[in-house]
Amino acid sequence: MHIAVINQIDKDQNPLPTLERASLFGDGFFTTGIIQDSQFCHQQRHFKRLRMSADRLLFTGLDLSQLQDRLKQLVSQIESAAIRISIARQQQQRGYAIAADAKTVCTILLSKLPALPCDYCQLIDAKTVISCNPTLAGIKHINRLDSVLAASEISSINQEALMYHGDLVICGSKSNLFVRLNGVWLTPKLSNCGIEGITRDRTIEMLNQQNIQYSISDIHRSDLTDVDAAFVTNSLTGIWPVKSINDRLVKLENSNYIRKLVTRI
Amino acid sequence: MHIAVINQIDKDQNPLPTLERASLFGDGFFTTGIIQDSQFCHQQRHFKRLRMSADRLLFTGLDLSQLQDRLKQLVSQIESAAIRISIARQQQQRGYAIAADAKTVCTILLSKLPALPCDYCQLIDAKTVISCNPTLAGIKHINRLDSVLAASEISSINQEALMYHGDLVICGSKSNLFVRLNGVWLTPKLSNCGIEGITRDRTIEMLNQQNIQYSISDIHRSDLTDVDAAFVTNSLTGIWPVKSINDRLVKLENSNYIRKLVTRI
Repeated sequence: MHIAVINQIDKDQNPLPTLERASLFGDGFFTTGIIQDSQFCHQQRHFKRLRMSADRLLFTGLDLSQLQDRLKQLVSQIESAAIRISIARQQQQRGYAIAADAKTVCTILLSKLPALPCDYCQLIDAKTVISCNPTLAGIKHINRLDSVLAASEISSINQEALMYHGDLVICGSKSNLFVRLNGVWLTPKLSNCGIEGITRDRTIEMLNQQNIQYSISDIHRSDLTDVDAAFVTNSLTGIWPVKSINDRLVKLENSNYIRKLVTRI
Repeated sequence: MHIAVINQIDKDQNPLPTLERASLFGDGFFTTGIIQDSQFCHQQRHFKRLRMSADRLLFTGLDLSQLQDRLKQLVSQIESAAIRISIARQQQQRGYAIAADAKTVCTILLSKLPALPCDYCQLIDAKTVISCNPTLAGIKHINRLDSVLAASEISSINQEALMYHGDLVICGSKSNLFVRLNGVWLTPKLSNCGIEGITRDRTIEMLNQQNIQYSISDIHRSDLTDVDAAFVTNSLTGIWPVKSINDRLVKLENSNYIRKLVTRI
């Protein structure tokens, strides 16, 4: 185990060491997307989400035009990558309170774009419960221990773990959920928990444009036994059709049809 | 705004940069205490809490004997300080899943011990709702955006903001709560949210030893109007008597009596 010491009481130090509040409290938010052929796919949607998150989490120092300039330069040299943009606070003052002189910092993480998983996904129920907080619901913030623990319940790369709030299914460990019940596509309400994913938004817009019946609604655990098709969405995977829910097979053709309409890139 | 880039796709890099999961996902936990006269106060309780947190959050690499040795050496040179011990995971692999080769890292933050606030505290209701998750309840983990936002609602150093889960009061933004109702001290159940604080535990043990009537129970918002005394607890402040709850004055003498029995150090 590596042990590091940050010493803010050493009298010879001036200024005091800066505290990174993302690692202290998860005080920040992020977005994850794809760079393909030197383009940041759906950049405007990602920027809109960063702005919304900043407003709700009281980040006053987010400079999107500076970020846009830096990305332009960076992305032009990249053929293909996964990109994560994290925004966090740093300050010298300890404790939860946001200092008047808190600074906003941005970290861009570039990784190899993960290979697309198998053509279909198997949904299992996670034992880990989803964190619930109407003040934070919808935001892709850095408080994601529930997703970390749910992801640890997945035993193969073709599985995704469904997370529940009481009797309601909310999402997968790293995805939003759509299910087809009585011919209507349903996706869970996210007013108490979950993340408003960018592919989820794109899918809802497409369903709307194509006049395909859908509803944003409560989906109960027992509803899943009557679902005849399902898919999950994620910015890196796009639409991932579901083959089975807790070992019960569902139809793939309806989900494959939606996947053709909402492409990943 | 400072912008940093972590590049995991640069082919010349070997090994890949390590990802700090505390800042990516809040994937870690911590404890905060006092060093006084070269002693880490209540060290065994802090260690017990770190071990419990590690077990529940699937941290297999926590080495408490190594930490104890490092602390012994460090603390011997310090007259007085606030100490925070953070435990987090790092790995090269991106995504929520915990990699088989994930490493446990420990960061010790030493700060000036904050001056004790005013002798009494004024409680106000936070608008920020507390995060609720039975899987994570009780743990002092790093997912603390709710406390950050609640702390931002405090307008003077003598205030503490009460956080609610629906109709139930759970705790303060940085403290546990005790209230006296009909002659019995009550402290909220923490089975769905909140942190099991070390001063809270010490207070419960003392109430038990002294045969002072108490109960760990649901406390409703409306109960607070009938409370005749209250205090909040925190490892750095100890017991902090409450003078008012949403501007309604309560008696200080009962809380001051408890403070004499549960000293800060």
